[in-house]
Amino acid sequence: MRQSLQPSRDPADYRFVHRVRTRFAETDAMGVIHHAAYLPYLEEARLAYFRELGHPYGEVRRDGLEAPVLEIAVQYRRPLDFDEEVEIHLWGGAVTRTTFQLAYLLTVTGEVRATAVTVHGCIDVNGKASRLPSWIAEVFIE
Amino acid sequence: MRQSLQPSRDPADYRFVHRVRTRFAETDAMGVIHHAAYLPYLEEARLAYFRELGHPYGEVRRDGLEAPVLEIAVQYRRPLDFDEEVEIHLWGGAVTRTTFQLAYLLTVTGEVRATAVTVHGCIDVNGKASRLPSWIAEVFIE
Amino acid sequence: MRQSLQPSRDPADYRFVHRVRTRFAETDAMGVIHHAAYLPYLEEARLAYFRELGHPYGEVRRDGLEAPVLEIAVQYRRPLDFDEEVEIHLWGGAVTRTTFQLAYLLTVTGEVRATAVTVHGCIDVNGKASRLPSWIAEVFIE
Amino acid sequence: MRQSLQPSRDPADYRFVHRVRTRFAETDAMGVIHHAAYLPYLEEARLAYFRELGHPYGEVRRDGLEAPVLEIAVQYRRPLDFDEEVEIHLWGGAVTRTTFQLAYLLTVTGEVRATAVTVHGCIDVNGKASRLPSWIAEVFIE
Repeated sequence: MRQSLQPSRDPADYRFVHRVRTRFAETDAMGVIHHAAYLPYLEEARLAYFRELGHPYGEVRRDGLEAPVLEIAVQYRRPLDFDEEVEIHLWGGAVTRTTFQLAYLLTVTGEVRATAVTVHGCIDVNGKASRLPSWIAEVFIE
Repeated sequence: MRQSLQPSRDPADYRFVHRVRTRFAETDAMGVIHHAAYLPYLEEARLAYFRELGHPYGEVRRDGLEAPVLEIAVQYRRPLDFDEEVEIHLWGGAVTRTTFQLAYLLTVTGEVRATAVTVHGCIDVNGKASRLPSWIAEVFIE
Repeated sequence: MRQSLQPSRDPADYRFVHRVRTRFAETDAMGVIHHAAYLPYLEEARLAYFRELGHPYGEVRRDGLEAPVLEIAVQYRRPLDFDEEVEIHLWGGAVTRTTFQLAYLLTVTGEVRATAVTVHGCIDVNGKASRLPSWIAEVFIE
Repeated sequence: MRQSLQPSRDPADYRFVHRVRTRFAETDAMGVIHHAAYLPYLEEARLAYFRELGHPYGEVRRDGLEAPVLEIAVQYRRPLDFDEEVEIHLWGGAVTRTTFQLAYLLTVTGEVRATAVTVHGCIDVNGKASRLPSWIAEVFIE
């Protein structure tokens, strides 16, 4: 595993927050949000962060870059229920020449529900590994 | 609505059958399969039918054609449960120069669960409406 | 088909609007939002409308009622792209003693993308058909 | 992280294999299977394994037990394409009194595409942590 970030359980350790309301379509027969539904939440939060940094993902892709997920790790601490507003806190780090990582904390009214880490590569239009764009490197290197 | 096929409730009226086992991830908090999960079942059955006709959808797309869904209508008659094996019966018809339709019947051990109709167009690599490929026209015109 | 509402293409004909931003996870290999992803959008809009009417769906369910989808019909007029903000306009009608319908218009910056109708029943905790709650009947009967 | 299994890249190290054909609905705008779609594949393989062990998950749940996912980790090594038949190899281990783990290897015609680990708890009908059923403990303890 390349994953090296340790997602803190304190929202104050994160740089950005994005809110998502859970959907009924995302529940399962246990009556809570299915564990696979968290991945689109993380992705939505990540792309909202890119937008906030001035780089909407549609533009990034039109410029010929993709940032595919190379690894993902999620710890589910307490279930998410239907119709809850989830705060997804995130920050980026662990930058290498061709990869970067994001750490996530999911809370509902302050209560920790899950933590996660995603590791991303960077590929060009031909699917070849590419150097990270400078705006990611600059923001994510502390 | 362009939709004109009437999906029969008798499996004998259909030309092809494809089996899908329902997934736990597709259940919702009502304890049954969520209504949105039926659309990927219909699509999987439709593309299995194309494969059986000698035209795997990957090849169709590499040849520069797509068959997007223009309309969909589903009648949910009895819920699908987790871990059921669903028989999806289907047949095509109502061909025009640029559209075709498919009718579907979903059964579990002979019991009717849902019926559906999809209407499809045909577009080329530039997103322009295109004539149907002859293999669809030939098979679907009675 | 019980479906009888005719969804207008004029937003002024609707009573409520809910906004959804399309997710990357909802795109498909055609580069646009997959047709199955629209159903959770409609559901989210419908439940936002119930919340606005003072009846969050979580409470409705705790009171022992469900409003399962009996029929759905969608007309896809122009694709939705990734990262678009979709306005989902809706209104309810065609109330019977045990069913009601909703009509939907999906627009992006005023441009029509899709229309849809859902037909709902009402069931109690034992899965038996139940009379509609009065708040639905009152609002949806013109 | 409780996750301790190391998923080998050699199919011979696994005890069970389950096949899944990728769906068009699971592709994304990069033209490959979206990373979130792998989680339902893992779940389907896991529940097929339980069925093979004589314990269909529907029965397990009727007996009052659930095995929720506490942690998940996936390494995406090469993309999955539309319409590929994926072999999901798996084995269980790392049993404690209340948790167990599964390791997964995803291959297509022998080529490694992804590896994964899931950590599961066991809860009873009241949502309380419960001891593992003996059939899991017996099979997973080497």
